[in-house]
Amino acid sequence: MFDERLTRQRQHKTIRHFTDRQVPDMVMARLITVAQHTATSHYLQSFSVISITDQHLREQIAQISGQTYVAGNGHLLLFVIDQHRAAMLATAPDMAELGSADKFLQGASDALLAAQNTVNAAENIGLGTVLLGSVLNDAKRLIALLHLPTLTFPIIGLIVGYPDQETQAKPRMPQRCLYFENGYTLPQTFQADMQAYDGVVRDYYATRGTNRREETFSHLLTRSATTSPAKRRELLTTLHAQGFLTT
Amino acid sequence: MFDERLTRQRQHKTIRHFTDRQVPDMVMARLITVAQHTATSHYLQSFSVISITDQHLREQIAQISGQTYVAGNGHLLLFVIDQHRAAMLATAPDMAELGSADKFLQGASDALLAAQNTVNAAENIGLGTVLLGSVLNDAKRLIALLHLPTLTFPIIGLIVGYPDQETQAKPRMPQRCLYFENGYTLPQTFQADMQAYDGVVRDYYATRGTNRREETFSHLLTRSATTSPAKRRELLTTLHAQGFLTT
Repeated sequence: MFDERLTRQRQHKTIRHFTDRQVPDMVMARLITVAQHTATSHYLQSFSVISITDQHLREQIAQISGQTYVAGNGHLLLFVIDQHRAAMLATAPDMAELGSADKFLQGASDALLAAQNTVNAAENIGLGTVLLGSVLNDAKRLIALLHLPTLTFPIIGLIVGYPDQETQAKPRMPQRCLYFENGYTLPQTFQADMQAYDGVVRDYYATRGTNRREETFSHLLTRSATTSPAKRRELLTTLHAQGFLTT
Repeated sequence: MFDERLTRQRQHKTIRHFTDRQVPDMVMARLITVAQHTATSHYLQSFSVISITDQHLREQIAQISGQTYVAGNGHLLLFVIDQHRAAMLATAPDMAELGSADKFLQGASDALLAAQNTVNAAENIGLGTVLLGSVLNDAKRLIALLHLPTLTFPIIGLIVGYPDQETQAKPRMPQRCLYFENGYTLPQTFQADMQAYDGVVRDYYATRGTNRREETFSHLLTRSATTSPAKRRELLTTLHAQGFLTT
């Protein structure tokens, strides 16, 4: 029997459609307070969160993401790696230090841990969530839209809201294909496990409630690598333009 | 009044010292199952987790981190960005695609979101946690110790265990210094807010239960930028050596 205190997380489902009931500002502020209390590298809180309340701006972000639901209901947030705030302090260290791979990874860690903690908080109070990597489909444009200064980078989006759909949890790969002991050791059964998993994924897509289609894990993987939006290939250039990964 | 369903997250505290009671393998497997059910970019599950059970290996990781408690009680996990598994599939896309900044950020997102979800799961069942960015103090050595192949990268460590200490939550910066609306807009009060926050941090360090010292936020920030371990400056080189951020 699975521990009931873990049931919600064990059955996590992404929600993309929300009712028109607004999440009160007070609730949003509480979620951000939780985000602020996420573990943070060196206690430096190297992230910011941008709340999108302007519908025109939101529609432009939806365009970038290529997902119409991004312009729909629910409250949209962008989690931003932030070393700019540090650079603005009277006692700021020099900018070159803040643009290092080290500082980028610290900021990415702070921002992404905070985003997931916000997801858990939202779901704890009955809200649904969808994390949006698709906001990086045109990172340069998103940076311009949000007036993001150098030493910042929008790493992920998140919509929280009152669920307006039922979804099913997607089956995950066998645990032994990703959980190893004392070193990186794919199991001897790896190829067979993944073939079997292709079948599990095929069954899921063929029998789920809506939007059924023919699909396998292998195909998703190949498709993702070969058909990613063109501007995602410019991410490294955009990271450099923001002053990151300079050393 | 803060929503009681958010109290634990609102009062999150890092635990670094654990009793010698082992976390049962069954519980660890459940935590990893939760990690697996974290939202994942394109459903690709681009991360792995390495469980450290060998004490000699663990002592070497503690050396890297510079923290003796890393070799102590509790169960140590390493969360790893993983595009190698994808490359091993019979239907694998070509390696150059998997080494892109895009794929690195997707893997970092998957791994870090899963790490935080594991933290929330562990704390939901009464365990304490500490996330370890310090494992990157010598990423090259860690990669060698864990036999990590190209297209993988250890992004963060985590210890979970039964708490053996009381700690206090650290005060966070004013919300308006990191939570913005429709764009990146530091408040006009920013410099004054941060000066006031320096005072709050000074008070926290001067009055906390143990290890009191003179400290401010500004000082932490400057110190972090100027005194980081030498090998953290080699992170970009190590990322490239692992095949990442090539395009």
